[in-house]
Amino acid sequence: MKLIKKYLIKFIQEELYKTGLKKAVCGLSGGIDSAVVAVLAKESLGDNFKAILLPSQHSSENSITDALNLCKKFDIQNETISIAPLLEAYPINNNLRKGNFSARMRMAILYDKASEINGMVIGTSNKSELLLGYGTIFGDLASAFNPIGDLYKSEIFEFAKFLGVNKEIISKPPSADLWEGQSDEDDLGYSYTQIDEVLSKFVDERWTKKELLENYDKNLVEMLLKRVYQNQFKRKMPLIAKLKARTITHDFLYERDVKL
Amino acid sequence: MKLIKKYLIKFIQEELYKTGLKKAVCGLSGGIDSAVVAVLAKESLGDNFKAILLPSQHSSENSITDALNLCKKFDIQNETISIAPLLEAYPINNNLRKGNFSARMRMAILYDKASEINGMVIGTSNKSELLLGYGTIFGDLASAFNPIGDLYKSEIFEFAKFLGVNKEIISKPPSADLWEGQSDEDDLGYSYTQIDEVLSKFVDERWTKKELLENYDKNLVEMLLKRVYQNQFKRKMPLIAKLKARTITHDFLYERDVKL
Repeated sequence: MKLIKKYLIKFIQEELYKTGLKKAVCGLSGGIDSAVVAVLAKESLGDNFKAILLPSQHSSENSITDALNLCKKFDIQNETISIAPLLEAYPINNNLRKGNFSARMRMAILYDKASEINGMVIGTSNKSELLLGYGTIFGDLASAFNPIGDLYKSEIFEFAKFLGVNKEIISKPPSADLWEGQSDEDDLGYSYTQIDEVLSKFVDERWTKKELLENYDKNLVEMLLKRVYQNQFKRKMPLIAKLKARTITHDFLYERDVKL
Repeated sequence: MKLIKKYLIKFIQEELYKTGLKKAVCGLSGGIDSAVVAVLAKESLGDNFKAILLPSQHSSENSITDALNLCKKFDIQNETISIAPLLEAYPINNNLRKGNFSARMRMAILYDKASEINGMVIGTSNKSELLLGYGTIFGDLASAFNPIGDLYKSEIFEFAKFLGVNKEIISKPPSADLWEGQSDEDDLGYSYTQIDEVLSKFVDERWTKKELLENYDKNLVEMLLKRVYQNQFKRKMPLIAKLKARTITHDFLYERDVKL
């Protein structure tokens, strides 16, 4: 884990500095993923990193306190901007739609705060939620680069302990904090330990569906594979109708730091 | 152009129907790009397509009238939602930041309106602006799929005439409509005819920088190549720090309609 920490700190510095920029922000929710990213970013960039707290009228008081205590412990620059006025300016009755809209309001503010200091937005999605599509496209899934997108949720817990993240953050059950008492594991019907083991066999070790079914609970395997493929669109750029010899995102695919 | 029209109508139908959905929305600004997409989408989906007008307090009156006249001419379902209350809920003094924030507010509303009718968001960015990075990442550049992303701006004008788009829309100078009298071609310093010719030689015909410099204005070529590579990040998914055998957007790259 020492090596992973060193590598991720270097990753943040390199991805930022090669653009010529020096500053960065990320959202800080009071959850474990953004806590891990904030600690890494502070170690990478010092006071050139700023954590942005973006509570709504529906965020639990604990989330805000936990986020602020993390900033205190690691001496992280921070700013709090409520998204409540935005949610009031565009009222939505449906919980799912409101959750997605909230995630997009947070993204828009993060990008604006990054622009204000001429910096970049660091992503905070872990590999489990990216694979399950358990996030909002062009909302919390949006960022310039993401240091923890190849770590499963259960690995994030271990890594957070290693980094010294506050106990209150590590001990609370994973939640998108969309309403009081909401729990990822209740929603998904399985624990992240169970989920991550199957995802890892499937994605990293390339087990076939048949092999997975021989070794794991049928409902779990089918739920996971369905989610992974149904949400593949969240991991792809908008599809463009091809009409020319070279089409953006089809066959015009340079890395982002290409010098043409 | 008859063939292109037929192909793009089919493209919209296929990308939508293969997800199991039947409805779609797109933003309608009063400009030529979204007008072309709206006409194609109406022909593809009939009344299952809805154009969403998203004016702000800074939009010109003409833009709204032009958009509504297009809907009248082609009998397109439409709805108007002002983003002014959202801009008032998060005031920004800087024009560039305000423009980007506005684009992201429009995206968030479009995705919400799509979700309301269980539909998808159709993109309206043309190839010139996608290559130049002349758009807001996670704002107007965000969509599920985009029928016109391989057509240059100067081709869009021809195509709009062919489709019968209202003359007022075709005849006005290209503008992001961020403030009164703003003009893309003034901002860029060259006409789209000049720009698109060089972009096409470079991207589609793979001319080298040396060949471009031998045939075109040096300032134009250098401005375009600089813009194309500086904005490559807008055409890529967030970069994830690689730690495993298969990493999302590195080497876990199935098409969005994969069945695993």
